[in-house]
Amino acid sequence: MTAQLSLQKLAETRRAVLDQALDAIRTRAYWSPHPEHPKAYGETAPADGLAAFEALRGGRFPLDQPGTDGWTGAETSPYGPALGIEYPHADIEVLLPAVRAGMGAWRAAGPEARALVCLEILARISARTHEFAHAVMHTSGQAFVMALQAGGAHAQDRGLEAVAYAYAEQTRVPERADWSKPQGRRDPLEMRKTFTAVPRGVSLLVGCNTFPTWNGYPGLFASLATGNAVLVKPHPRAVLPLALTVRTAREVLAETGFDPNLVALAVERPGEGLAKELAVRPEVRIVDYTGSTAFGDWLEEHARQARVYTEKAGVNTVVIDSTGDYRGMLGNLAFSLSLYSGQMCTTPQNLLIPRDGIGTEDGHRTYDEVVADLAAAVDTLLGDDARASALLGALVNPDVKARIEAAAELGEVALASREVRNPEWPDAVVRTPLIVKADGGAGSDAPYLAECFGPVSFAVAVDSTAGALELLRRTVREHGAMTVGAYTTSPEVEAAVEEVCLDEAAQLSLNLTGGVFVNQTAAFSDFHGSGGNPAANAALCDAAFVADRFRTVEVRRPA
Amino acid sequence: MTAQLSLQKLAETRRAVLDQALDAIRTRAYWSPHPEHPKAYGETAPADGLAAFEALRGGRFPLDQPGTDGWTGAETSPYGPALGIEYPHADIEVLLPAVRAGMGAWRAAGPEARALVCLEILARISARTHEFAHAVMHTSGQAFVMALQAGGAHAQDRGLEAVAYAYAEQTRVPERADWSKPQGRRDPLEMRKTFTAVPRGVSLLVGCNTFPTWNGYPGLFASLATGNAVLVKPHPRAVLPLALTVRTAREVLAETGFDPNLVALAVERPGEGLAKELAVRPEVRIVDYTGSTAFGDWLEEHARQARVYTEKAGVNTVVIDSTGDYRGMLGNLAFSLSLYSGQMCTTPQNLLIPRDGIGTEDGHRTYDEVVADLAAAVDTLLGDDARASALLGALVNPDVKARIEAAAELGEVALASREVRNPEWPDAVVRTPLIVKADGGAGSDAPYLAECFGPVSFAVAVDSTAGALELLRRTVREHGAMTVGAYTTSPEVEAAVEEVCLDEAAQLSLNLTGGVFVNQTAAFSDFHGSGGNPAANAALCDAAFVADRFRTVEVRRPA
Repeated sequence: MTAQLSLQKLAETRRAVLDQALDAIRTRAYWSPHPEHPKAYGETAPADGLAAFEALRGGRFPLDQPGTDGWTGAETSPYGPALGIEYPHADIEVLLPAVRAGMGAWRAAGPEARALVCLEILARISARTHEFAHAVMHTSGQAFVMALQAGGAHAQDRGLEAVAYAYAEQTRVPERADWSKPQGRRDPLEMRKTFTAVPRGVSLLVGCNTFPTWNGYPGLFASLATGNAVLVKPHPRAVLPLALTVRTAREVLAETGFDPNLVALAVERPGEGLAKELAVRPEVRIVDYTGSTAFGDWLEEHARQARVYTEKAGVNTVVIDSTGDYRGMLGNLAFSLSLYSGQMCTTPQNLLIPRDGIGTEDGHRTYDEVVADLAAAVDTLLGDDARASALLGALVNPDVKARIEAAAELGEVALASREVRNPEWPDAVVRTPLIVKADGGAGSDAPYLAECFGPVSFAVAVDSTAGALELLRRTVREHGAMTVGAYTTSPEVEAAVEEVCLDEAAQLSLNLTGGVFVNQTAAFSDFHGSGGNPAANAALCDAAFVADRFRTVEVRRPA
Repeated sequence: MTAQLSLQKLAETRRAVLDQALDAIRTRAYWSPHPEHPKAYGETAPADGLAAFEALRGGRFPLDQPGTDGWTGAETSPYGPALGIEYPHADIEVLLPAVRAGMGAWRAAGPEARALVCLEILARISARTHEFAHAVMHTSGQAFVMALQAGGAHAQDRGLEAVAYAYAEQTRVPERADWSKPQGRRDPLEMRKTFTAVPRGVSLLVGCNTFPTWNGYPGLFASLATGNAVLVKPHPRAVLPLALTVRTAREVLAETGFDPNLVALAVERPGEGLAKELAVRPEVRIVDYTGSTAFGDWLEEHARQARVYTEKAGVNTVVIDSTGDYRGMLGNLAFSLSLYSGQMCTTPQNLLIPRDGIGTEDGHRTYDEVVADLAAAVDTLLGDDARASALLGALVNPDVKARIEAAAELGEVALASREVRNPEWPDAVVRTPLIVKADGGAGSDAPYLAECFGPVSFAVAVDSTAGALELLRRTVREHGAMTVGAYTTSPEVEAAVEEVCLDEAAQLSLNLTGGVFVNQTAAFSDFHGSGGNPAANAALCDAAFVADRFRTVEVRRPA
């Protein structure tokens, strides 16, 4: 193939970004090349993005990849309309060999060329952030601005972060080494050695419904940047954002002279169970998955020919001991519970509050007062339907609504979930958070000890902060957690919470009262999950997330 | 606990070695602080080491670790004598909690302190290399000088390499970061973040019979240096080298003020199956294992609560296409087949030789000539019983002898295995290598396609070098390989062999004719295995080998 876009040209335009990303993962200071503000993408970007999205609806999404044996797809927006898009369905016996075919040249290109190609893919995705935002919004139910930020800029950040980690890991062993071992009076033994990063094989991305790009890009780009081919199996309800991603990747691969089939899409027909079939194929040597614990466990147990990276369910806890900024705490928590209707793997579920209440800058507040004040803060935040809709988004699927209704029967309701009418999308199902009171002394079958995915939280009354920490420890150890939050003015309590989080490998946010929320992490600085408790076996993104996606092959010969 | 040995003192004596090791894994040039020559350890070291070893025999090996409920041990030297040493048998319900108890302080000490303590342990082991050499010799059957080098200096190198990798990985994320995110005209969001490397839990080392220290130290030191506690379950026939290691580690931990129980020994009673029991305990979060494919597979399937690092069986191949140094090639191969009676996971098993013969600097040699010349080279190398014994060592167990005898029935014997009498140890079972002719066109049930552990090689006649490469590819893909060798004067063939090894993730040695052998790898420079083919799921030692033994916990708070 002839490259229309030379690697030298790419180095000129993209190498500086790679270097900045490498610096950012080392310092972990704030950095991002991807703007969060919708207006940052140019004056015509909003209209262009919407038009591009609308043009995709009601038609086929061609990809020109081998082995297409039909068309499938039945996405319906959580905001109401059916998308009406059909995607190629693949005969995997044809597609899998095609996906593998270009791996030799991709391996030979080396870590820098692969990183630059990945950065070009991300740059083109970034340029179409508005189009992606509509695609994410109408598959996940995220509100538009969140879809643009989390599904656009932040997802691109996480992808870029993975590329930087992949480059750093692959280049820590030199390409060549001369080795000379003294032999006393005899001549030294001398060897020339070369070291090459080689891929594991085909990397399977099993996409999720709620964050198809944000949760998908780290694995996709980590695998591609380390020389693997990537087969993308999207969630049937969130195909479009990943289909657009695959199309962009294939475009850039072809333009740079690589085989576009290094990235391919595998959309399943209803009930086909394609992820299970693909995950155990011998060609598949890496699996990335975000979703239910049941299927994550299935993958870990059965896909033993592959390295399996899973993010599963967890039970996120906030320990409320005391605060010097009561209003700030309530506002911050209200926002965290409400954002995307609590449908984030990082949303707090259990708020542990001492039965005797807590100290605040304005004096003591009883358990009931804290719960009532939090409920009021949520009500205030979500009082206006339009504003509430922009924060809540829509319920991603009917199961979430059913879960809210069932949870309301589990105890005394401190804050009822109400229906919100989205003025722009009247068919969207929008519900405010539910807060249920619960007893921290309940047994191991307490409902709050299982993940209740969606806008459901439990205000768990505990005997003391010590009791809260014991419950926190047990929850993380047995059920996992993506996030832990804590509010305290006591250095001793702070140290004790830190100790539990260090012991149980949970990421901790302390005393958040402003514009940073426990459920949001920033690429290049914050780790998403720890990979050390049952919620996930990997963190986004660290060396361990990329270092085993490739192997180093040494060739040695006498010098 | 009061530290008798301060960390500051340790930094003065050991930090420079750590820095040199860090430099070595980056450049991969030759380096080692551990002398290979027996005389390098001082004039009295040989006698002192022997006396120390003799003093251990016929007695109990006290360790003062909690939960000892009896004594066990029945090691017999492959050189004849029973060692008569009894080791504490542990009640694991008592020992496991004790092993975990010191992890908090060990975590809090941080990566540098842990590295320095590990280096002190290695330095004390190094000072007693002669004693360890006797222990390795009389459990593995390695000849004394090999036991001193591979079981002493080189094992210490591999341990130090793991410490360096562990330190490098843990310190790539800063301890602290300040994060300031611009918010347009509003104040920036500002956070202070801390990052702490936390261990996974208890790391279980399941030791092997042939290389208890060399194969054990990487996992042991990688886990200890990353903050884990390490429980050592030695092979019942090779307890002593690891018992001495555990004792040394406990000594240094205690002297530096840490809990000695962070490293403990779990010796099994005959038939107890302790590895299976320990490997699935919830406290055990890491397993390192070297041994049979059957038990390695069992561990990978069942110990799902742990990260499992396995080195299993493989079928190592040497492709013989042509050579410009025929004598050098024959001598090098003869040595590789003979060293430690072929009982290395890296010993070549299948020598692929074209039916039509090969080109050499002295003209063409037929297949039969090559095989006969290699047989003659082995005979010459091992003609003298004393010299042969020093190279062959002793058969590690009776299964190896049975395997030689069975293999002699598998085809035309090109070189018969003969008994060698070790003049110093007349009871040792010593056998020279067997070479059997085989047909490269045989089906997938050909005996040479399974590992035949011990001094058994197959001279496999192939139709062409292309056929050899195809057989090499199939062998590595389906059966794995720790090493691949090749001899060729053709740049095209060289490139083709490299391509197969890159495709199948196998480590390749080209045209070895001097003092470097395909079955030997040097720490800090050579990778042992690739972790990318069925012979092993990890390489010694790379970032992936250490990066997932710890997790990074972040605590963030408003600045």
